[in-house]
Amino acid sequence: MQLTETRLSESHRPTLDQALEAIRTRAYWSPHPEHPKGYGESAPADGLAAFEALKGTRFDLDQPGTDDWTGGEVSPYGPRLGIEYPHPDIDVLLPAMRAALPAWRDAGPELRALVCLEILSRISARTHEFAHTVMHTSGQAFMMAFQAGGPHAQDRGLEAVAYAYAEQTRTPAAADWSKPQGKRDPLELRKTFTTAGRGIALMIGCNTFPTWNGYPGLFASLATGNAVLVKPHPRAVLPLALTVRVAREVLAEAGFDPNLVALAVDRPGEGIAKTLALRPEIKVIDYTGSTEFGVWLETHAHQAQVHTEKAGVNTVIVDSTDDYRGMLSNLAFSLSLYSGQMCTTPQNLLIPRDGIDTDAGHKTYDAVVADLAAAVSGLLGDDARANALLGALVNPEVKSRLDGAPGLGEVALASREITHPDFPDAVVRTPVIVKLDGTKPDAEAAYLSECFGPVSFAVAVDSTADAIELLRRTIREKGAMTVGAYTTSAETERAIEEVCLDESAQLSLNLTGGVYVNQTAAFSDFHGSGGNPAANSALTDGAFVANRFRVIEIRRPA
Amino acid sequence: MQLTETRLSESHRPTLDQALEAIRTRAYWSPHPEHPKGYGESAPADGLAAFEALKGTRFDLDQPGTDDWTGGEVSPYGPRLGIEYPHPDIDVLLPAMRAALPAWRDAGPELRALVCLEILSRISARTHEFAHTVMHTSGQAFMMAFQAGGPHAQDRGLEAVAYAYAEQTRTPAAADWSKPQGKRDPLELRKTFTTAGRGIALMIGCNTFPTWNGYPGLFASLATGNAVLVKPHPRAVLPLALTVRVAREVLAEAGFDPNLVALAVDRPGEGIAKTLALRPEIKVIDYTGSTEFGVWLETHAHQAQVHTEKAGVNTVIVDSTDDYRGMLSNLAFSLSLYSGQMCTTPQNLLIPRDGIDTDAGHKTYDAVVADLAAAVSGLLGDDARANALLGALVNPEVKSRLDGAPGLGEVALASREITHPDFPDAVVRTPVIVKLDGTKPDAEAAYLSECFGPVSFAVAVDSTADAIELLRRTIREKGAMTVGAYTTSAETERAIEEVCLDESAQLSLNLTGGVYVNQTAAFSDFHGSGGNPAANSALTDGAFVANRFRVIEIRRPA
Repeated sequence: MQLTETRLSESHRPTLDQALEAIRTRAYWSPHPEHPKGYGESAPADGLAAFEALKGTRFDLDQPGTDDWTGGEVSPYGPRLGIEYPHPDIDVLLPAMRAALPAWRDAGPELRALVCLEILSRISARTHEFAHTVMHTSGQAFMMAFQAGGPHAQDRGLEAVAYAYAEQTRTPAAADWSKPQGKRDPLELRKTFTTAGRGIALMIGCNTFPTWNGYPGLFASLATGNAVLVKPHPRAVLPLALTVRVAREVLAEAGFDPNLVALAVDRPGEGIAKTLALRPEIKVIDYTGSTEFGVWLETHAHQAQVHTEKAGVNTVIVDSTDDYRGMLSNLAFSLSLYSGQMCTTPQNLLIPRDGIDTDAGHKTYDAVVADLAAAVSGLLGDDARANALLGALVNPEVKSRLDGAPGLGEVALASREITHPDFPDAVVRTPVIVKLDGTKPDAEAAYLSECFGPVSFAVAVDSTADAIELLRRTIREKGAMTVGAYTTSAETERAIEEVCLDESAQLSLNLTGGVYVNQTAAFSDFHGSGGNPAANSALTDGAFVANRFRVIEIRRPA
Repeated sequence: MQLTETRLSESHRPTLDQALEAIRTRAYWSPHPEHPKGYGESAPADGLAAFEALKGTRFDLDQPGTDDWTGGEVSPYGPRLGIEYPHPDIDVLLPAMRAALPAWRDAGPELRALVCLEILSRISARTHEFAHTVMHTSGQAFMMAFQAGGPHAQDRGLEAVAYAYAEQTRTPAAADWSKPQGKRDPLELRKTFTTAGRGIALMIGCNTFPTWNGYPGLFASLATGNAVLVKPHPRAVLPLALTVRVAREVLAEAGFDPNLVALAVDRPGEGIAKTLALRPEIKVIDYTGSTEFGVWLETHAHQAQVHTEKAGVNTVIVDSTDDYRGMLSNLAFSLSLYSGQMCTTPQNLLIPRDGIDTDAGHKTYDAVVADLAAAVSGLLGDDARANALLGALVNPEVKSRLDGAPGLGEVALASREITHPDFPDAVVRTPVIVKLDGTKPDAEAAYLSECFGPVSFAVAVDSTADAIELLRRTIREKGAMTVGAYTTSAETERAIEEVCLDESAQLSLNLTGGVYVNQTAAFSDFHGSGGNPAANSALTDGAFVANRFRVIEIRRPA
């Protein structure tokens, strides 16, 4: 059955309207069930079977210019995926993508948004399948792969579509203009305004959150009238390949050229992202990954609008609390989730060396660190629970940073090796907490670099005021995706807020319950600020979508 | 009397609301009278006297870090202005500007907008004075300096404020977030969202339209919470120095640090714009001028959001018309206004060599060119009228391009020297029209470069289809601020529209009355598209303002 505009509108216009309302109010909202049971009784088994059926196959997308097959994904849990993906001849693929643009432009903002929502809704229906693909490429535990890789990623995609639609419809499609001329006839013009995408957008995916970090750029670009070439991380191709397949299916059914969305997987060492990033056809780039390549993109891809999320150093200031237990358990969870392999995981815990005041009395620096270590140990004491929280280390570099961490200072909590009952080859580790003296230069070298993975530093500082100055310096020099703070002092709270406002960082205060500093909710929380070195854009605001398209005016006498 | 928020709101909130409505509907609107008589009986004499009183003075702004005085403006009409401006020690001035930022951020989007509207309204009250400053720096004739440098520039500034306000208020100042947790208590957070400017914005002014091209960036940056350092073109300092003075007065009266707006005039050959553009404090840059420096900014000032308007080659396709006289007189006016020294003036008139169909019968290429030449001659036949339309050549480079034009091809209309009765030293010239064969390579070298000034090329092409292809190539390779076309064929119209949509250029069709391709109206027309090499942003859309600020979220348990 053909996907007509009427059918798409019936299915998705109400959802689009709710999303538009949500980004205005920023109240809680999501159309995507967070619980695995929300997808029907057979969904878990069907999803697993669908994932298993993909293994060992050639993932054909029927793209123009496929000149080879490539791919070598190995699950962080052990198994080789054994999937081969099309390798593109970009001199064939890019022109084919460009040829698809005029009809996509002529579709207009609403139909483009509806098509995007249909893509998202088909992805949503296959959330269990996607969860396994995310788990076996990122190393996330199943439940996190399910939620972050499924509904939360879909939320972020939908949020981008809503912003794109809102931005494009700020200017009316047409206007009548009549300028009075005193006693003479007015000057009268009929004007039309057409939103046109900039061209082909390149989305460069990351290893740890292929869908969550990929969907905002992908859907923002597509909804604003661009074609999107998806270049996944070589270790996390499958979730995005599946996304591309769904998008191509929907586009074709809706009467558009499926080449509006295509996949580019390169051979080992080929470095196709660098080549693509400088091609004149590429007008928009979205990237999540290392600072090195992110800065390279920002300084070299002048022909494109470049959105980057890079490395950062996240800080939590521990000044005082009226819920010591709540603070410890909240922090323990934040440090443990996905073995600290989130761009939002706290790295530096700044704690006054004279200790802190709490509802359980004054606690020395040593006591706070020991109690936090105990909280982490308690949280992860049961292996089954630990496996469900930690997942596997995503790559050997994370493991070597973890192995090297004890050399940086006194170990307050040693990392523990955990066996996964289903996947004996998975490298599962609990986090390490290392004590550092914030005033020592060699310690500074450690805590002022991003140590991505399950490594946190309990940094002793002379005072909360010093902690606040160190926070300022850390954000300014190293960037931060998140900042957390615990304090019962209104004055301290205000001083920390000032630093975050000055240096452009997102702040979570006194989180002691079930919300964690490393999690942001689409439609309400901004992910990153775009104003410090960790990222040049935020997910998602007007700036994230506004420059992906242009408005072309045609005026003529009325 | 102190400018309280209440007073500012009473004075300006209705205007802001009207501006917000105008950018949504894009119907005609302006709060700034276009006619010199709209400013009161004594305004003309007062304005002239105020301008005369500025000549030969030291223009003190009471800025921190003034270490010298500099300035050497000479009116294109002859007289030296003899005004000295403060020369900045930027290591003193920039920190003083940064210190002003937190209070400006805390003011919030509405108060910032109201302060900007007060600045604009005081500038508006002095429009006659500003008109003389624009006339004697740009060389525009008085009436154009009055309108384009006064109300139209103020409109563009107000439009930028409206966009900035709308963009910043898309996110609420605060939100309550409550996420259901089944049978457990919901997760509840209180969130605040603060818009914070990126830092100091640098506005680099141009010679020809110091206020019109300068106000959008200046007011967009200021309204979004940035401080603005204004670096005028060395030949057009006065209009912007006066703007800075008014802005500083209003800021101080409203209780803000006047250093939120400051002036940077350099010594001859000092090149302070390059130094400033790379300073880490400069986070936003707006620039109008040469392609060379614009591209340099785009490729080097990575720490800043860079908005550029550069050179372009504007085309008019002449295919057919049902109002031959109207077309000729409309084009004649477009070529003559301000001696073609507008970034929007048509340069290449593409005319089929077999001629065109008109309501006055078929016209050969030669006839069209001759009739256009006659129309220009007729329009400028009277010296007083010519002086009122043409103004003076802004600099010697324009004159040498004009003098060199006859060497490029057959002259269809020679430039005529006109004496200005009040300013015998002014260099006033009528435009030249040169015939070129579009298929000849040496002709191509001429018409595919920007020849800024009163030089137009009547390019003979083999067919309208060829004209359309040449239009596509010209926009793609050289950029265009405007495209015009005359055709009675719906098919041709559609083909030209397609090219403009594909290549991102603003199109005016069949203008035969009192609207000209080189004029755009704030609140309704976009100036430039931001999608071709002539400019990387448009005046004004969401993208022009959205990345000048960031939204900082602070969340805490409810």
